[in-house]
Formats: sequence, structure tokens, C-alpha cells
Amino acid sequence: MSRHRKPGWGEPAAEALRVTSTGPIAEFDAESTPGFDGDKEFGETLLAERGQVLADLQELLYANGRAGDNRSVLLVLQGMDTAGKGGIVRHVGGLVDPQGLAIKGFGKPTEEELEHDFLWRIRKAVPPAGRIGIFDRSHYEDVLPVRVHNLVPESEWSGRYELINEFESELVAAGTTVIKCALVVSKDEQKARLTERLERTDKYWKYNPGDIDERGFWDDYLEAYQAIFDKTDNDDAPWHLIPANKKWFARLAVCELLIDALEKLELNWPKADFDVEAERARVAELD
Amino acid sequence: MSRHRKPGWGEPAAEALRVTSTGPIAEFDAESTPGFDGDKEFGETLLAERGQVLADLQELLYANGRAGDNRSVLLVLQGMDTAGKGGIVRHVGGLVDPQGLAIKGFGKPTEEELEHDFLWRIRKAVPPAGRIGIFDRSHYEDVLPVRVHNLVPESEWSGRYELINEFESELVAAGTTVIKCALVVSKDEQKARLTERLERTDKYWKYNPGDIDERGFWDDYLEAYQAIFDKTDNDDAPWHLIPANKKWFARLAVCELLIDALEKLELNWPKADFDVEAERARVAELD
Repeated sequence: MSRHRKPGWGEPAAEALRVTSTGPIAEFDAESTPGFDGDKEFGETLLAERGQVLADLQELLYANGRAGDNRSVLLVLQGMDTAGKGGIVRHVGGLVDPQGLAIKGFGKPTEEELEHDFLWRIRKAVPPAGRIGIFDRSHYEDVLPVRVHNLVPESEWSGRYELINEFESELVAAGTTVIKCALVVSKDEQKARLTERLERTDKYWKYNPGDIDERGFWDDYLEAYQAIFDKTDNDDAPWHLIPANKKWFARLAVCELLIDALEKLELNWPKADFDVEAERARVAELD
Repeated sequence: MSRHRKPGWGEPAAEALRVTSTGPIAEFDAESTPGFDGDKEFGETLLAERGQVLADLQELLYANGRAGDNRSVLLVLQGMDTAGKGGIVRHVGGLVDPQGLAIKGFGKPTEEELEHDFLWRIRKAVPPAGRIGIFDRSHYEDVLPVRVHNLVPESEWSGRYELINEFESELVAAGTTVIKCALVVSKDEQKARLTERLERTDKYWKYNPGDIDERGFWDDYLEAYQAIFDKTDNDDAPWHLIPANKKWFARLAVCELLIDALEKLELNWPKADFDVEAERARVAELD
């Protein structure tokens, strides 16, 4: 295999998958592999290679965080039920040192959380300096199911897009690179995955009857997703559509997006904050 | 390679490495591989295999946690500087789904932490149901450097062993399996690792001049560790000595201890909390 900077990619993942390139979610092909010209076998081999690149960059980020650099990365994962958010956390997050991760899943808000504004629980979970944060669901839940089911009045949820933009701008200003990914499965693939969960006793725990109810609101969700992209995609906190019918591709794509974000930080190993020669002399003298 | 229940181990790691078997830390050989009769090559191959076993057990624990089982596992890591605690988190923690981990490092206490009793920050970090918690340093810091340097009066630190035992008993009663590991390097190996950190610019960030100062208290630390083993090792929250000169062995040993703890939970896949046949029918009817 010839080695070039982004093997397999005709154009960078961050461009090919950006919602401004992919077109509307309602017409998006969950089976496609935008920007990538390899098959599953190649993709899996590549993920192992690129995983090492990601791991090295993550260590560099972590080292800089320890040395006082305030930068961090936040990966926001959204997606239909069964789209594979958990698989991304496991198989992409699993490529790097778990100490360097700050993973937070957001379920139905607790009573205490509901007593605060919707960003309260989110702010508490933003990644510390030097970490890669992963949100498995996020503040976007507050304009997805909440919008679809009008869990709060429209007058309230409609104001949240702007609050989200302000929040993310603050994050970026504070040194966090924000990458947002919406995983997209087709209805057929979702049905196949739900079927599988009911066929295997080791998958029952992943099955939630409520997923079928939510599927009844498929088109409303597409509309709610499109609203997010239209209102909260920007160069500082871009949204990407990740076709997720092919799990191998979704993992590779998210890995590439993280690599891209980390490369842009142009990190170097932190300089010693001690006198290297003096310390070498001290160590050499140890018994 | 023939397959038996614990390949490579003449006796279970949990027994061979238990402080009651290994003898005093002052006479412990950091180069040894108690209970294990393989070399590095075999050990590394075995770790990859056993890592898959660990990952499967971790998923089972997680699934049960999601289904309402309150059990969890807590791995407490202590060790001299350079002993490789971080490497254990990376290479053993890295074998499982990072979502299933709750990793917490304990550094010098903050001002806020010092305003509370020493267990306050610890209690906040205990693993939730279904998780494997890893403490990189722990409440034992409060009877290790604190004791060696009398950072609080002896009358205060000497009472902590009993408080620790009570705390750990509570944890166990609440469903947490507690495994405690002290990683041991020899003085020669520590010197070699410190030297290496000063030879490579990508290792500078791991070097702390204070480590050399602490090395001056080596024998005091051995005494403080021995006091921990004598006062806080018990069948519910056992201490293990992990010889850490051979990194591959330390990782394999800790992996085995985790597998052993998880196997003892005798976990099965959670039963469905829904009517499987009815749900199969619903899914089959989806368009």
C-alpha cells in the first residue's frame, strides 16, 4: 500500500462528511462512504494503523495538558437508536489510553438536572485540559426528543439553538476543539439491528421497547436533526454526518475526524520545566 | 499451547501475589514472576488472549449494571514512582470498553479537598454499578507520603488504617469487589527508568525532580507499605504485591486479578425485562 497523508481518503473526512457537503439528512445514504474509496478489509486494516496515530496524538495532548496547556477536544455523538454510538466509544475511544478520555453519557435528565437549565449537566462534564471528551448523547437531546415530543413548549426549545451556539463558542474560546457527529442508519438497518438484539440473549440488555415507539417519529427526527445542522453547524463547532450502516466505516471516519482535530493543534512535546543537565547529573549519582 | 483454566499460572495470581504469600515487601524481588512460569513472549501473547476474556467479563458486568445489579469492581493501584501505574491503566484498562471504566487519579489534595476528611474525595470517585473503577493512587496516599513525611501528626495518620478498613468494608457491603495492588520496582530499575525519561524529549513530561527526593526515603516507604499490608489486608479487600520490573508481567498479573474478581461474581446475561415474543412480533411488523 502506498503511504500518503490520508490513505484511502480522496478528500479529508472533515470535509467530505461535513453537513455542508453531504446535503440534507433526509436524502443521506447511510450505506455510503463519502470521501473514502476502500472496502471493509482495507478500512479495518487502516483503522488499526490510524488508531496508532490517534493514540500518539492523544498522548501528546495529554502531556501538554499536564504541562499547563488548556486545550482539549470534545467529540459530541448523536444518532438514531441502534446507530452505534456505543460502538464508536468502544472501538474509537478504545484506541487510546483510557486515562486520556473523559466519557459522559447523557440519559433522561434526573430530577436534580431538571431543576437546572439544560446546559447545567453538560457544563459539568466538559473535558479537562489535555483530554478527549466524548459525549454519548449531549445537549442536543434538548432539541431532538424534546422538540419531537414537545417535552417543553416550543417557545422554550426554539431558543436553545442560540444558547447552544453561545455555549460552544465559549468552549472553543476556552481551548476546546468541538467535533459534532450524527450517526445515521437506514430504517432497514435499524430493523435488522433491533431484530438481532431480540435473537441473542447476550443482546437483550441493549433492547429497549421504547426504540420502536421512537421509530414511529422517524421523519420528525430527521427534521429535528436538519434544524440542528442548519442552526448550529459552524466552522468552530462543525457537524458531520456519519453513515453508520457500515460499522467499520463509521469508526474509521470518527477516528479520522479526531486525528484531524488533533493535528490542527500542532502539538509538540512539552519542554522540560527543570534543568535537564542538572537532573541527569543527579540521576547518574544515585546508588 | 494447551488450554487450561489459568494458562501459564501454576497457582492463581490472586493467591501467588497476595501479600500473605509473598512475604515482606523489603525482601520482595521486583524481577520475579510469582506463580507464573512463562517468559515475556508467552506472557504478551497470553495478555492479548486474556484481554479478550476480561473484555467479555467487563461487558457482562456493565450489562448487569444497566439491568439494576449494583455490583462493581474497584482496582486500587499504588506504587513507587516509575513503577508503572499509568502503564497498567493504559494497557490493562485499555483492554476493555472505556465506557465500562471509571478511572480516577489522586494527586496532591486541593485546598477544597483538604477542608474535608481524607476519604471525602475518595468516596466521590467510587465506581458506579456495573463499572470497573481504577484508582491511580488512592486513600493510601494518606498513610504513605503523609506518614513518611508526617504531613499530619502521627496521632492523626495512625487512626486512618482503621478508617480505611471501615470504608472498604462499606464498599464491599454495597457490592464493590475491592482489589488492591502495590507495584514494586527495584532501585536499579527505578534509576534506569528515571534515566530514560531524561534521555528522551518525549518523556520529559513524565519526569519529576521530586521523584529523586522521594527516593531518598525508600526504606521509610517500604515500612509505610508494610504497615498498610499488615493493617489493611483482609479477604474482603486483599492486597497484592505486583513485581513491576517486567512490565509485561505486571500487566498480565493485574489482568488476571481482574478476571478472577469478575469470574467470582458469577454473572449471567440479564434476563429480558420485556416480553421477548411480543417484541419480536412488533419488530417483524416494522416497515
